[in-house]
Amino acid sequence: MTGPARMVELWRGGLLESWHVGHAAVWSADAGLLEAWGEPETVIFPRSSCKMIQALPLLESGAGESLSTERLALSCASHQGAALHTGLVSRWLSDLGFADSDLRCGAHMPADADERERLIRAHEAPCQIHNNCSGKHAGFLMLSRHLKAGSEYVDPAHPAQRAIRAAFEEVTGEESPGFGIDGCSAPNFATTVSGLARAMAFFAAASSGGGPRERAASRLVEAMLTHPDLVAGEGRACTELMRAMRGRAAIKTGAEAVFVAIVPEKRIGMALKIVDGSTRASEAAIAALLVRHGLLDPDHPATMKRLGAVQTNWRGIETGVLCKAPGFA
Amino acid sequence: MTGPARMVELWRGGLLESWHVGHAAVWSADAGLLEAWGEPETVIFPRSSCKMIQALPLLESGAGESLSTERLALSCASHQGAALHTGLVSRWLSDLGFADSDLRCGAHMPADADERERLIRAHEAPCQIHNNCSGKHAGFLMLSRHLKAGSEYVDPAHPAQRAIRAAFEEVTGEESPGFGIDGCSAPNFATTVSGLARAMAFFAAASSGGGPRERAASRLVEAMLTHPDLVAGEGRACTELMRAMRGRAAIKTGAEAVFVAIVPEKRIGMALKIVDGSTRASEAAIAALLVRHGLLDPDHPATMKRLGAVQTNWRGIETGVLCKAPGFA
Repeated sequence: MTGPARMVELWRGGLLESWHVGHAAVWSADAGLLEAWGEPETVIFPRSSCKMIQALPLLESGAGESLSTERLALSCASHQGAALHTGLVSRWLSDLGFADSDLRCGAHMPADADERERLIRAHEAPCQIHNNCSGKHAGFLMLSRHLKAGSEYVDPAHPAQRAIRAAFEEVTGEESPGFGIDGCSAPNFATTVSGLARAMAFFAAASSGGGPRERAASRLVEAMLTHPDLVAGEGRACTELMRAMRGRAAIKTGAEAVFVAIVPEKRIGMALKIVDGSTRASEAAIAALLVRHGLLDPDHPATMKRLGAVQTNWRGIETGVLCKAPGFA
Repeated sequence: MTGPARMVELWRGGLLESWHVGHAAVWSADAGLLEAWGEPETVIFPRSSCKMIQALPLLESGAGESLSTERLALSCASHQGAALHTGLVSRWLSDLGFADSDLRCGAHMPADADERERLIRAHEAPCQIHNNCSGKHAGFLMLSRHLKAGSEYVDPAHPAQRAIRAAFEEVTGEESPGFGIDGCSAPNFATTVSGLARAMAFFAAASSGGGPRERAASRLVEAMLTHPDLVAGEGRACTELMRAMRGRAAIKTGAEAVFVAIVPEKRIGMALKIVDGSTRASEAAIAALLVRHGLLDPDHPATMKRLGAVQTNWRGIETGVLCKAPGFA
């Protein structure tokens, strides 16, 4: 064990200005751990990168059997609160007879610039539906009702969260050493980087003809691949890189610089964590892994925006470049 | 040389989630290098942390002899474009007969929430005066006119920038290995972490009774200490921590996680760089160094906001803590 591996570098004026280290693992559903950088046995919080795992009980239980691909994609999403996202989540909640006040994710300003500026101009505060996790929470509410459980669905002892923990431990193949409270108030279960990659490989290999969990996983992957715009939003890495790969891989970011990928055609899963929590680095690193595996064109504008990205300043002058470190991917 | 030192950690749910490494040096004007973590000979870009060095020729040349402490503080500032800041810079420019279009820093949305929302509601674009470096650039324009030099004052070959490079190399005690182009388009000269700390020690020890450079440095430190609100802005680390120290130290942040401190009473300077460029970590690390040296109360709210900071989510629930790593400071 030699510590985390250098993955991403920022150069300016011909000198190395900043750099990022991390852990990464690529797992095959058929062959196990294929490759790794850093220490893949490091315990991490997957944060939002594991939303598709958190959505498994919604489908396995039968609660979400009739859900559209749009709603399934939103259940796995960290959306940016654009009108597209809030409209769909609002409709989902009202169809269930729930209101914004039934959510337990909290409210925050949306990342979507248009919606944010609309709120500011209208002197309106954001509601919980704007929270990037509101689709996941709509799914939690639906599961909770199906389980005839109480309203405090983010309590770690709530039946919905207990079902999620069980699914999480089964697909990662590890007993979780604990949980943290996420930005959206739900418990976020810890696992290793390789455990997370293994879970993604399970999703990659899941067949629509398999058992309830496999069918659930297969439907969630299909939903993510069908709606890259719902999983994140315009301009965002998940959306742009999924579009660039034209359905060949589903990817998902998580706070504190986690990123995962599900690659059905190769039956592999990927997971990485940048130890310092910088999103710019996790985006560059997942792009590098996807390029390495022939899934992403290194010259695609969506790739170059994150990997080999020329940095420009307020006057458009080139100041530096964000690139892959030698020896990684 | 064992690489950078771990300085800051983020804990969640009883587990280490993310961590930051860096280099730091504390330099005494009388005794040289007092203490260091990581590799103090690492070459870094000081970015905005060296604005007080970039302001030296403005005073040494005589160009800024009559400047108020407000304008001198702004020449060293990364202000947040609040009405307070833009008003003072606008007046300075108009007193010089210059306009916004004479600036070469570029325009960006101000960090100040009130001013940003005002612009959005008025459907107004930000102007160059909103740029956090506009005070520094007003000083550049003033120096440039005094030198009877051309309008492209950010050109590395421009007399203003040549004077700045000379001053920079003299106070750091090192020949700069090169420069990068900063966010504001000015050249940013590289030096070592210890060179930057040595420069800050020069400022700390500079006497109003000394030669032209010492007098210039002394006036700039006095201006920063007098106007913490102009050096950054409400809510910002430089402003809040300087206020908490009640004039005992001037501190300044730089992009990509650089932070410096000038401590006149001890005739010492501090400099640090977090290698991954995360501001949350550079703020925590400088707070830790200031606490270590008895300058900052660890229990002051401004300290606790950055060091030992309890992280809460959108519903106010505690999720984790950002703290000093064992072994640092």
